[in-house]
Amino acid sequence: MATYTPPVRDMLFVLDTIGDLDSILNLPDFGHVDIETVEGVLSEAARFFSEVFAPTNEIGDRKGVSLEDGSVITPDEFKPVWSKLVESGWTAVTGSQDFGGHGFPRTIGLALSEMMTSANLAFSLIPMLTGSGITLLTRHGSDELRDKYLANLISCEWTGTMVLTEPQAGSDLGAIRTKAVPNRDGTYAISGTKIFITWGDHDLADNIIHMVLARTEDAPPGTNGISLFLVPKFRLDADGSPAELNEIEVVSIEHKLGIHASPTCVLSFDGATGFLVGEENQGMRYMFTMMNQARLEVGLEGLSVAERAYEHAAEYAKQRLQGRALGSSEPSPIIEHADVRRTLMTMKAYTESMRCLVYAAAAADDVLHSAHSEAERLEAGNRLALLTPIAKSWCTDRGVEVASMGIQVFGGMGFIEESGAAQFYRDVRITPIYEGTNGIQAIDLVMRKLPMDNGAVIEKYLAEIEALDAELERAGEPLAGVRTELANATKVVRKATSWLNSSPDVQARMAGATPYQEMLGTLAGGYYLAVSALVALPHVDKDPWMSAKVTTATFYATNLLPKVHGLIGSAIGGSNLIFAIDPQYIGG
Amino acid sequence: MATYTPPVRDMLFVLDTIGDLDSILNLPDFGHVDIETVEGVLSEAARFFSEVFAPTNEIGDRKGVSLEDGSVITPDEFKPVWSKLVESGWTAVTGSQDFGGHGFPRTIGLALSEMMTSANLAFSLIPMLTGSGITLLTRHGSDELRDKYLANLISCEWTGTMVLTEPQAGSDLGAIRTKAVPNRDGTYAISGTKIFITWGDHDLADNIIHMVLARTEDAPPGTNGISLFLVPKFRLDADGSPAELNEIEVVSIEHKLGIHASPTCVLSFDGATGFLVGEENQGMRYMFTMMNQARLEVGLEGLSVAERAYEHAAEYAKQRLQGRALGSSEPSPIIEHADVRRTLMTMKAYTESMRCLVYAAAAADDVLHSAHSEAERLEAGNRLALLTPIAKSWCTDRGVEVASMGIQVFGGMGFIEESGAAQFYRDVRITPIYEGTNGIQAIDLVMRKLPMDNGAVIEKYLAEIEALDAELERAGEPLAGVRTELANATKVVRKATSWLNSSPDVQARMAGATPYQEMLGTLAGGYYLAVSALVALPHVDKDPWMSAKVTTATFYATNLLPKVHGLIGSAIGGSNLIFAIDPQYIGG
Repeated sequence: MATYTPPVRDMLFVLDTIGDLDSILNLPDFGHVDIETVEGVLSEAARFFSEVFAPTNEIGDRKGVSLEDGSVITPDEFKPVWSKLVESGWTAVTGSQDFGGHGFPRTIGLALSEMMTSANLAFSLIPMLTGSGITLLTRHGSDELRDKYLANLISCEWTGTMVLTEPQAGSDLGAIRTKAVPNRDGTYAISGTKIFITWGDHDLADNIIHMVLARTEDAPPGTNGISLFLVPKFRLDADGSPAELNEIEVVSIEHKLGIHASPTCVLSFDGATGFLVGEENQGMRYMFTMMNQARLEVGLEGLSVAERAYEHAAEYAKQRLQGRALGSSEPSPIIEHADVRRTLMTMKAYTESMRCLVYAAAAADDVLHSAHSEAERLEAGNRLALLTPIAKSWCTDRGVEVASMGIQVFGGMGFIEESGAAQFYRDVRITPIYEGTNGIQAIDLVMRKLPMDNGAVIEKYLAEIEALDAELERAGEPLAGVRTELANATKVVRKATSWLNSSPDVQARMAGATPYQEMLGTLAGGYYLAVSALVALPHVDKDPWMSAKVTTATFYATNLLPKVHGLIGSAIGGSNLIFAIDPQYIGG
Repeated sequence: MATYTPPVRDMLFVLDTIGDLDSILNLPDFGHVDIETVEGVLSEAARFFSEVFAPTNEIGDRKGVSLEDGSVITPDEFKPVWSKLVESGWTAVTGSQDFGGHGFPRTIGLALSEMMTSANLAFSLIPMLTGSGITLLTRHGSDELRDKYLANLISCEWTGTMVLTEPQAGSDLGAIRTKAVPNRDGTYAISGTKIFITWGDHDLADNIIHMVLARTEDAPPGTNGISLFLVPKFRLDADGSPAELNEIEVVSIEHKLGIHASPTCVLSFDGATGFLVGEENQGMRYMFTMMNQARLEVGLEGLSVAERAYEHAAEYAKQRLQGRALGSSEPSPIIEHADVRRTLMTMKAYTESMRCLVYAAAAADDVLHSAHSEAERLEAGNRLALLTPIAKSWCTDRGVEVASMGIQVFGGMGFIEESGAAQFYRDVRITPIYEGTNGIQAIDLVMRKLPMDNGAVIEKYLAEIEALDAELERAGEPLAGVRTELANATKVVRKATSWLNSSPDVQARMAGATPYQEMLGTLAGGYYLAVSALVALPHVDKDPWMSAKVTTATFYATNLLPKVHGLIGSAIGGSNLIFAIDPQYIGG
């Protein structure tokens, strides 16, 4: 079975170096948190997630979930672990102190989420989706709804779901048909069929709180006519305890490529009692404010599975003897073969760069919600908006790539399910798809984020990267390779950025969106590792961990960052070639 | 269920343009085959493989195989289909006419294999492995062994296996321990445990002929002491019919990520009767002569799954309505969205370029075995030797990439097993691993193939690509983009080649092997598509299929070929960085 060792030192390093944790802990909202507490929390949580949570990963994959008499049944091993998670309070660290949470910064919450997700992606989706519900309710729910539901969601005694998709409304949520008819008592009767509802039912919690998109009768068409409703599995009695079953049927669960332990439900609502969240017809707007959060969490999933696959492959490569490395007369551990070592270095460099990118976005989120000044908040919000599609798409694409490399390190054993490498490859494949496919992230990046503030937001980011050049120059020879490659890569990304931000041809911009997104993600990864290398450099003589950080940054800069040069042609190549062939000559 | 439409027109186009079919049919061995026969065979076979064979793919994946009372049981649906395949004679087209085959060129055999493999990869492995056994027996077996076994293998009434791997001997076959002790009658008693034996047992044929690597008692250590034995499941009686069971036990079958319908067996030989093939201690040499064949077949598997995944995704993208394409007021089929269309174009371009590469190698193999002159044979052999690791690795890596793109086109449905997209992603993942991992292919390419004939073999190939420049120049504006990008890409590949062929640092060459392999594969794909575009160009006005060929070549040249520029840094970057971090700082 694949063990998991949470990379606490790297997490703290990235929180400090990239996440600027000191500044975040100085924000008004976080006066009650200090760095010692954070260190204690991370090491305590590391023990819990590696020892208690991680062992459920393979069991969940193998046993999966089942639908019996209309209810989803989880593996027996999940129940005690879930209880322990709820008791531990790890899921409540970022929750509002007014409702029983600990009010920690989101950066710390994400570090804990990373551990939980590395330990068991399928299982981690419950707190993740519950967190989205908490955000929606906190921001947009009435006092009454908050009082009734929020504390139990923050403690995870009740769990949450996002109920958006319908068969005809996937990427295009404007096509939603589920109906909401007002009842006399101010509630609504919700009716319709919803698909792809993650953890839509299960046997772990006393109640499940669905956040459902639906249309009232006279709502305008498209996305402007969608409202958000809270629909509990069990209606509450006068004491606020779960009582009567609501009118929700679990029609079926899906047979999926991965995350077998996470039930993906088709739910049928047949006049179920729903409570309007916020105002009518504002549902999509509310969802969009929450989506940045969920998208970043999915980016985190790419990182988390990559970390686990990387650790797993490295462990195997150190003990598997096969062939003789150059200069050896005995069978060698395969980590001594150059090609395997290159693969592991690639996995390591991508994983550490993803951590930087995700934590950087989380730090922006903390500043956005807690900064001293409006100007800081505005800037942080713009940074978060820019980084979110990159973190979501780049980290999930790299997650798939790293998991596939993990299989390759295992050779023939990697194809055998018992080795565990295959599960990561299957599980992580959902992440480039859900919460907005990576193609949709790319459109968001190019059509909405690049033009923000007349291009000033992306310009500021590129200028920040360029400003590192002076520091890299001062660092001299040890970072000379990083400096050269970062400058070259930034130049080509800047060229693509200018082209995309000035082209009047919308179709051409959309055609170049995905390759551009990969370029910007690749550059961001190289940038953050370069920052890390600058911090690590003074310590390399005494500390091999710090020395490894400089090597990893250099490896990334010289081996991975140059990929941007192979992408610019596609990013600014326009759409003519792409649409030149009639569909009848595409396919079989 | 995913349908399959064999791309007969493209197969014939590539056979003609890249495979130089005219010349091959003029070789002395193929006087009995003409182009009309080839066309007839392909269109007849296309019907068989699409209508009869392809429908077993999803069934085989879902039902898998089981081990009952020591025997492997295949899905019921396989038995009648297998009988029809044997009757059809499609697997016997390349077999020797002396033993009931049709003596067709290998290029035609590979085109048929492509159809069989696209239709059902797991099932196609029986004829594939049987073909390897046929080659070994034909080249190295005694007359007696050939007379007894060859005809039944060529007809596929009996099937073959390759029995090489042991738990400690995967990539390093020199570590094999299975023993062969001479019996008095000239046979050998074979004892040992073998793993990863594809189709090592099943219920479809009357006999299974294992080709087993083992050591005689006084054999030298390592690869120089390995002999090859033919070990039948059933020993033959005096009439040559299968009679007594040999001493072979099916210990278990593996639970795999993909190719569920292909039983991967652990076989225990306990003094089983074996017949020496060729001479003692020559087993690895024989295997190597056969391995080029098998490796090319695995490269073909990458192509074949890519073709199927591409067709499947294109079909879905034409009917799935979601969102509105630019300028449309109605929901659009997603093929009209630029990002999806780019994905499909990438799938198309890779698939067609892979077909060229694999067929080019097969054509070299035909010339190698049938050419008029020794000089031609030598040259063809060198070309085959060069192209084999590229075809194996590049096509399987691209196969994984294309299958993953297929899932992405399906969006959320791609993650649901019923859509069929996930099966391609799971199945194809074995191909970069077996028959020599792609890392081993890269070492073979850089350490053995590049230095061949003092670098003259790769030089000739690069010069051939450069020579196309004059033709592309004559073609003018329509191929100007192809010309520029091909020239730029060739320059950078040439630079990497020179570096790798002149560096005295062996570790550095091994460290650069995989990125170099990707560079050369990417260039080869672009080269063959450029050749195709030159052939197609005169017909574009009257024939949209030909016009699509030119567009595809241009898309490849401008969007995919530039990837080589992002790889050269890794290819010639040396090994220092790769080995700079102590293993204790790699992994968790």
